[in-house]
Amino acid sequence: MQIGFVGLGKMGLNMTRRLIAGGHTVAATDLNESALREAAEAGAQTASSISALVSLLETPRVVWIMVPAGNPTQAVIDTLANQLSAGDILIDGGNSNYKETQQRGEALAEGGIHFVDVGTSGGIWGLKEGYSLMIGGPEAATDHLKPIFETLAPAPDRGWGRVGPTGAGHFVKMIHNGIEYGMMQAFAEGFEIMQARSDMGLDVHQIAQIWQHGSVVRSWLLDLTVNALAEDASLSEIAGYVPDSGEGRWTVAEAIDLDIPAPVITLALLQRFASRQSESYAAKLLAALRNQFGGHAVKKVDS
Amino acid sequence: MQIGFVGLGKMGLNMTRRLIAGGHTVAATDLNESALREAAEAGAQTASSISALVSLLETPRVVWIMVPAGNPTQAVIDTLANQLSAGDILIDGGNSNYKETQQRGEALAEGGIHFVDVGTSGGIWGLKEGYSLMIGGPEAATDHLKPIFETLAPAPDRGWGRVGPTGAGHFVKMIHNGIEYGMMQAFAEGFEIMQARSDMGLDVHQIAQIWQHGSVVRSWLLDLTVNALAEDASLSEIAGYVPDSGEGRWTVAEAIDLDIPAPVITLALLQRFASRQSESYAAKLLAALRNQFGGHAVKKVDS
Repeated sequence: MQIGFVGLGKMGLNMTRRLIAGGHTVAATDLNESALREAAEAGAQTASSISALVSLLETPRVVWIMVPAGNPTQAVIDTLANQLSAGDILIDGGNSNYKETQQRGEALAEGGIHFVDVGTSGGIWGLKEGYSLMIGGPEAATDHLKPIFETLAPAPDRGWGRVGPTGAGHFVKMIHNGIEYGMMQAFAEGFEIMQARSDMGLDVHQIAQIWQHGSVVRSWLLDLTVNALAEDASLSEIAGYVPDSGEGRWTVAEAIDLDIPAPVITLALLQRFASRQSESYAAKLLAALRNQFGGHAVKKVDS
Repeated sequence: MQIGFVGLGKMGLNMTRRLIAGGHTVAATDLNESALREAAEAGAQTASSISALVSLLETPRVVWIMVPAGNPTQAVIDTLANQLSAGDILIDGGNSNYKETQQRGEALAEGGIHFVDVGTSGGIWGLKEGYSLMIGGPEAATDHLKPIFETLAPAPDRGWGRVGPTGAGHFVKMIHNGIEYGMMQAFAEGFEIMQARSDMGLDVHQIAQIWQHGSVVRSWLLDLTVNALAEDASLSEIAGYVPDSGEGRWTVAEAIDLDIPAPVITLALLQRFASRQSESYAAKLLAALRNQFGGHAVKKVDS
């Protein structure tokens, strides 16, 4: 089927490629001209603006937006809301906050536009392996989009599904990412302990490879660990500085809203914060207090 | 090759079956007569005692012990140490503490007995899918055992490896289990949050199935989650009481010995402790203190 695509970043461009390879007709736009050229080379019709894109689409129009969450997503939706008509379908495949998605769905529904949210997992590997799609939205709209989901997913019959009304897709993706934080942190801690036992001469890359087959911890994240450790298991070139992009903290906020203890997911998020501190005021204060009550020496800041 | 097996529990019996299916000759003993009968039906020679087992083996003898860690393992090793000869190989495939394994290796080496430790992962699925084997021990001994490892592993060329000297296998298995604790807790927390949003009507079994394909959290533990949720996603029949069998707490102790922060693995262990408390004295004291300073009401114990 025909689909419009707004946003040709590392996710959007690969999804465009996978859709074209699957026989769909893609019209795409992006502010980045080189991304636009790449989409054209992949076989997409390209448009220099959102309004030009909309004019390329047959009704009912289907537009997938794949831009950063927050203001960029809101701006694209605002623009599209003025140009789409009742019966058109707008899809947000990004990592939007599910509460914003619910609000956008209500606003768009007033103009008869169906809003579908698709939590999309798979990263840069999705082009080859397919994307896991967690879908929220009105059933008639998600039914209409079935051919798109069947192509983007790892296989037509798996890795995708409608999980609830508008917002449910982004909610489930948020939880997915929260779990991912905890799993990653568990691997990270285990490998640090092994790495620290230099007296044992462990080859942590080899160990990760052993675990890939038959172990309880076998997983895609372990496969990625094998890749990450392949060239330099000491990770000497990589700073231990870990950003976060929202979904972890939203998961923690959700757990708090629900009075549910989610300590490991929470702590995994906090460890990312700690990784970004070059100095901790709390640690300074702990050192100062040990000095106050026990006269314990404090380590001075290197001048 | 010929191998003696001591311990025909849920792991040992299946390993015996996999070895026999792989063309090896297995002689086995266990105190449990029905397990012994099952081993005989699977094609093993059986012996009614450890000394009878030893007499069935050609030199250099190879004996794999698969009994609970701690005293049972020590008792079997003590018995075997008196009956094996220099050049024989003794393998501990259980979840022993690696420090005890190192000590046992030194003691056995005095009598010329080679001690090999094999951290064995795969649980009840190992018979079908093969076991992940983390192997420690003298290289000559582990080389000699190669045909055994090739059969027990998921495939001859993967899922097993010598990771270091005696003790290293159990060390790596300990860390594996520590990571497992963190991963399991992360999944558990994420699913609890989803389950709590009953207003969204999420089908957590369906969501787990979606994640199995293409998502970042796809893993064997997720596959097991799908199985666990298949019949009753509310888990209404299962008490939230989670035992632990040592390796998690040893991982935490190791991290502390090394001055390495492993907060998520540690907290995953502590959550298991919390799961086993029907009442928390700490929670009682918190409630009492809130009452002391703020006059906040306390909830009385149901009488």
